[in-house]
Amino acid sequence: MATPQFKEMRRCYSFDEVALVPGDVTINPEQVNIDFSLGNLTFSMPILASAMDAVVDPPFAVLMSKLGGLAVLNLEGVNTRYQDASGVLAEIANAPDDEVTPLLQKVYSEPIKENLIGDRIREIKSQGAVCAVSVTPQNTKRFAPTTVEAGIDILVVQSTVTSARHISKSYRGLVFSELQKVMPIPIIVGNCVSYSAALNLMREGVSGILLGVGPGAACTTREVLGVGVPQVTATMDCAAAREQYLRESGRYVAVITDGGIINSGDLCKAFASGADAVMLGSILAQAKEAPGQGSHWGMANPHPALPRGTRITVGTSSTLEQILFGPASVTGGTENLIGALRTAMGMCGALTIKEMQRVEMVIAPAMKTEGKYFQALQGYR
Amino acid sequence: MATPQFKEMRRCYSFDEVALVPGDVTINPEQVNIDFSLGNLTFSMPILASAMDAVVDPPFAVLMSKLGGLAVLNLEGVNTRYQDASGVLAEIANAPDDEVTPLLQKVYSEPIKENLIGDRIREIKSQGAVCAVSVTPQNTKRFAPTTVEAGIDILVVQSTVTSARHISKSYRGLVFSELQKVMPIPIIVGNCVSYSAALNLMREGVSGILLGVGPGAACTTREVLGVGVPQVTATMDCAAAREQYLRESGRYVAVITDGGIINSGDLCKAFASGADAVMLGSILAQAKEAPGQGSHWGMANPHPALPRGTRITVGTSSTLEQILFGPASVTGGTENLIGALRTAMGMCGALTIKEMQRVEMVIAPAMKTEGKYFQALQGYR
Amino acid sequence: MATPQFKEMRRCYSFDEVALVPGDVTINPEQVNIDFSLGNLTFSMPILASAMDAVVDPPFAVLMSKLGGLAVLNLEGVNTRYQDASGVLAEIANAPDDEVTPLLQKVYSEPIKENLIGDRIREIKSQGAVCAVSVTPQNTKRFAPTTVEAGIDILVVQSTVTSARHISKSYRGLVFSELQKVMPIPIIVGNCVSYSAALNLMREGVSGILLGVGPGAACTTREVLGVGVPQVTATMDCAAAREQYLRESGRYVAVITDGGIINSGDLCKAFASGADAVMLGSILAQAKEAPGQGSHWGMANPHPALPRGTRITVGTSSTLEQILFGPASVTGGTENLIGALRTAMGMCGALTIKEMQRVEMVIAPAMKTEGKYFQALQGYR
Amino acid sequence: MATPQFKEMRRCYSFDEVALVPGDVTINPEQVNIDFSLGNLTFSMPILASAMDAVVDPPFAVLMSKLGGLAVLNLEGVNTRYQDASGVLAEIANAPDDEVTPLLQKVYSEPIKENLIGDRIREIKSQGAVCAVSVTPQNTKRFAPTTVEAGIDILVVQSTVTSARHISKSYRGLVFSELQKVMPIPIIVGNCVSYSAALNLMREGVSGILLGVGPGAACTTREVLGVGVPQVTATMDCAAAREQYLRESGRYVAVITDGGIINSGDLCKAFASGADAVMLGSILAQAKEAPGQGSHWGMANPHPALPRGTRITVGTSSTLEQILFGPASVTGGTENLIGALRTAMGMCGALTIKEMQRVEMVIAPAMKTEGKYFQALQGYR
Repeated sequence: MATPQFKEMRRCYSFDEVALVPGDVTINPEQVNIDFSLGNLTFSMPILASAMDAVVDPPFAVLMSKLGGLAVLNLEGVNTRYQDASGVLAEIANAPDDEVTPLLQKVYSEPIKENLIGDRIREIKSQGAVCAVSVTPQNTKRFAPTTVEAGIDILVVQSTVTSARHISKSYRGLVFSELQKVMPIPIIVGNCVSYSAALNLMREGVSGILLGVGPGAACTTREVLGVGVPQVTATMDCAAAREQYLRESGRYVAVITDGGIINSGDLCKAFASGADAVMLGSILAQAKEAPGQGSHWGMANPHPALPRGTRITVGTSSTLEQILFGPASVTGGTENLIGALRTAMGMCGALTIKEMQRVEMVIAPAMKTEGKYFQALQGYR
Repeated sequence: MATPQFKEMRRCYSFDEVALVPGDVTINPEQVNIDFSLGNLTFSMPILASAMDAVVDPPFAVLMSKLGGLAVLNLEGVNTRYQDASGVLAEIANAPDDEVTPLLQKVYSEPIKENLIGDRIREIKSQGAVCAVSVTPQNTKRFAPTTVEAGIDILVVQSTVTSARHISKSYRGLVFSELQKVMPIPIIVGNCVSYSAALNLMREGVSGILLGVGPGAACTTREVLGVGVPQVTATMDCAAAREQYLRESGRYVAVITDGGIINSGDLCKAFASGADAVMLGSILAQAKEAPGQGSHWGMANPHPALPRGTRITVGTSSTLEQILFGPASVTGGTENLIGALRTAMGMCGALTIKEMQRVEMVIAPAMKTEGKYFQALQGYR
Repeated sequence: MATPQFKEMRRCYSFDEVALVPGDVTINPEQVNIDFSLGNLTFSMPILASAMDAVVDPPFAVLMSKLGGLAVLNLEGVNTRYQDASGVLAEIANAPDDEVTPLLQKVYSEPIKENLIGDRIREIKSQGAVCAVSVTPQNTKRFAPTTVEAGIDILVVQSTVTSARHISKSYRGLVFSELQKVMPIPIIVGNCVSYSAALNLMREGVSGILLGVGPGAACTTREVLGVGVPQVTATMDCAAAREQYLRESGRYVAVITDGGIINSGDLCKAFASGADAVMLGSILAQAKEAPGQGSHWGMANPHPALPRGTRITVGTSSTLEQILFGPASVTGGTENLIGALRTAMGMCGALTIKEMQRVEMVIAPAMKTEGKYFQALQGYR
Repeated sequence: MATPQFKEMRRCYSFDEVALVPGDVTINPEQVNIDFSLGNLTFSMPILASAMDAVVDPPFAVLMSKLGGLAVLNLEGVNTRYQDASGVLAEIANAPDDEVTPLLQKVYSEPIKENLIGDRIREIKSQGAVCAVSVTPQNTKRFAPTTVEAGIDILVVQSTVTSARHISKSYRGLVFSELQKVMPIPIIVGNCVSYSAALNLMREGVSGILLGVGPGAACTTREVLGVGVPQVTATMDCAAAREQYLRESGRYVAVITDGGIINSGDLCKAFASGADAVMLGSILAQAKEAPGQGSHWGMANPHPALPRGTRITVGTSSTLEQILFGPASVTGGTENLIGALRTAMGMCGALTIKEMQRVEMVIAPAMKTEGKYFQALQGYR
């Protein structure tokens, strides 16, 4: 008996399975343009810092803005739950491994103080920085007025999975087209991973989408829920939605790859997969200025009933400026991200991010002879 | 010379090779319906406990029934060979690694006491629980009358591989259509893995099939016999048989994925592969109420001449209720299985198990940047 | 510019990438027939012992024959170079790791004594055993008369790669059709791996072919030469040659899978790939009666200028009879090979080896949840 | 909604994923011809030594030439920056792991002395050796006159990625067709990896191309930049360009695989992928005569702002002659490279390198049962 197919499945790809092909023309790295635009705002580099408590606090947001990028402050994290956020962060960083999850659950059960929302935003704005903050869909209507009043420039509405239409008996789901009408600033929504989900969100009028479910270093969504799409395919699919939406509306929505980028090689591949910008957590958590003091954890980690994530210890070896602009003192791709991006663009013959989205990419599993793997093999000889 | 093809081979998939894609619509987890029906019985969750001696004894079966699920008691295990089963289980749990297989072979060579069959069933029924028991095909005719008399609700006929037609010179194979006629209760048969084998069993009139050969945590069938089909493909193929049989007969047979589920992510993927329910061994063996005291082993393990399996030590960290309903204190997907299933269904926009069977699934090998893998890599930095 | 294809490459498969699918009908294991025929000889099991010094000496050959199988004695190994072969074998078994290769090179540089050839053969024949011996193609003309005179039943002509046509300026290559005419006994030739090479050898009139280049446990041919085809594909391709040759000539040539079988699961898969028999080295070297005393090494290992192989230490845990017929005391598939084959054939509904060659096989990478892998993961929990 | 494809990706292959298929005819290894031609020069073996400071200094270049191969001296390394190069090399070899990258950055910031360029070349030429030197594209116009004057035979213009057309505002890119007109000797250019980039370079009139971006043992280009194509596919694509260029121009350009070859098996596969010659670094760094004293590192390693690479410690176990011609005392494929190539060609029935380019190659992931892997598994038994 021939077996009928119950369901079709596509093969998806993650960063470590692909590689970029050098171009027929090469370009001097200083000559490439890596600007990133969102609504009317333009940034001199296409990098966002994740709305993770271990990565972004107000001083970090100010520094990131001064360096040309954009940091997103989590409005539902320790900064708005505790006046003394850094004491809480130190407690998390120093907790033994097997006590971290219960501790996070306890820390994040403290109520959010609305007055702290305004304070944190004003702390950033008073330094002349661009200010972006994140809220979850269920709290957006409640917190949005305060944030606008305090002067935010960009609103990020983010949960593990956010769709254009949410079904619930107990409350009416957030309607982004209505929100966008009352908010005079760019709204970024996420996360999503598929062509149709991204297209539906774009049709709501938002300025950017965050894509990525499951790939983050501090995230165990795939183990707990089985949900997730590898980032190369997810970026490609959302970029295809952007092109489709551009054709049908004439409006360009920024596609931002969020999660799964552990070195500058991955970052370069994100753009070649179609991204307009990337959001980084783990790499930036290694900055000396990061509030996590060498540790980080995801936003789904402290869920009271279904925690998903782990605390990752990464250490703090360099300044944010060195991580972004070098010079690198390590060779694993965690420093001089911008230098690496410019060099890769030069090798691939891409003058702009838009051209980088079109360079050839191949399926090329990590090679055994690459540096570290090779060294690990030495033991056998 | 061109090489003619001797045989075609299909690519099959296991849980760790696939992932679920979030939906265009999302749903509040409390709102999804996860009922499971078998014949005239309805359960409030689609989870069965394996007929393994380390997982189910009469008190565990009662507890599982009270929580809304269904436990299957192995009628050919220690509970029917020994009056004092727990003493024997303690001996197994405490045996050194290299003495386990011979010990299991000895323990399971003790004859089955028919009087204990009735006693164990009545122990479950007297507590008001739904009672399911398992027997092997060769012993079914001998034990079935006793089980019916003692009041069982569901009969499970199970061996490593069970087909609708068994050839033997020494005895006449069990004919399920005849058995079903004389048994007034739902019969579940297993295990099978292919479309045609499942369809043939359904045509015999049974109420449910168990699918899975080789994937269980405590099973070495693939190393010893080379036999086995990865669970995602096996579930899809048997689900295709269910749909075909439904078309030709109008009758709906439950497809139950048995084995290979090591976390709640796998559980969610089983439903997206087409399962109506799942049977769990390893995860439930971690319950404080499980008779295995932190260890478990498979039913093929104690075979006198060809043992297949290993004793797995899993520890006992939480209660059965916490494993099923949380709150979870760990983040690896072994607690709050029902919460995880509801959350995944909500993310994928599935209101019922039937809708969950239709969500998009992709081929997505486990990503290097997932939590635990990433931590393991830290050593290289 | 579109890239023209320089060369096409087929995907090939090894044992650990495939699995057998249970049948729609199952059979009682005692009822299956596993006879193996070669020329006019019939054996009660389809297993040959490799012509490796660590596996076969005259007493082992006699025992293997009595148990129903066939052992091949290497006529160019220690048994024909040294009167006291066991002393030499002990020296090899006890050498430190880093001295093994030079020691093997020295041991095998001792000239072959023609008188020992006759002695060893007569030692086997005098016990009433079937006697098979192996020689390399370059020595076949020189040694063949002595072997026939001493009474061998089967001649095996074997080197890493043997073809029907060998080009050399210094000597005329062996012509198998001529050899077969002057030898009144079955000739087995090997090794080959492709459809065309196997078909060419069959057309020379030989009775059997050995297939396998590169897969053996003690072999590093792939690292040193880059040459080798995974055993499932190699077996399928040679089986296709057998079917083609049968159609064109009416004669059935035995296809024997040699190498790469590390457990009974692999053995079952070899038959499902089309083999008529298998040749085992590593598994049989674990027998208490094996001359290697718990170690073994390949025939290409002691090459004076280009050694290819390693000494593998396997230990000696059971008797040859227990390895072949059980009962097994381990669960990893290295004992009760015949019991495992019969059980797998029963599960797959194959009454004969010929039917086993036709059972469904799927591509199914080793699953993470299989016994040993799972235990290795426990450390992460 | 069906998902439109944003970008197509081809599957590429590395050495460890493929294997050679033995031929229908076999050949005596002594009889195969492995000559390599470049312009009017002919070498008795198709092996080049990498322009790495740890591999080639003037004495090594002389020795390599005497043995029949070709070594390339890096004109921008320690030999032209320091009078006493070996003192600097010793310092690098003995530096602790975490100080290597900063040390390399410092060492390579010392200016190049033009007078040392002439001295090093004359040191090689005065011994009667063929002399090849490498320069980067940006320094080619500046150093070329000196090198020609000093008597070089071959010029290698090499950087991580070199294209026929480089875009820069600050300087006019090197035009190879102009360079070739004024240089009366063969020019080799690299590295490239794609069909179109190779074809464009060939059309500039060069005599050879080096292919390989990312695969070298001491290279982390893929982690830092995400750029790289596995060597089997890269070689095939560049070989396709050679065939196309031969058809359109009648001129044969040598295709040289550079990087990623860690044993003689890989070397054999490079030719079967279409290479005319191979360039070796890591393997030759193991020679007692190599200046690196048992360590090596890549040319991209000491980049001041974006270092890419690691120092690899390989030890020095044998002479260059033994590495090339044996006899081998190890079995992992790092000695007797020429013997291995001749043996593999004999097994595959290839009389010349040109015929070796046409032998069948299959996709065959490294098998679990291969020697070393098997030994690693022993711990589980």
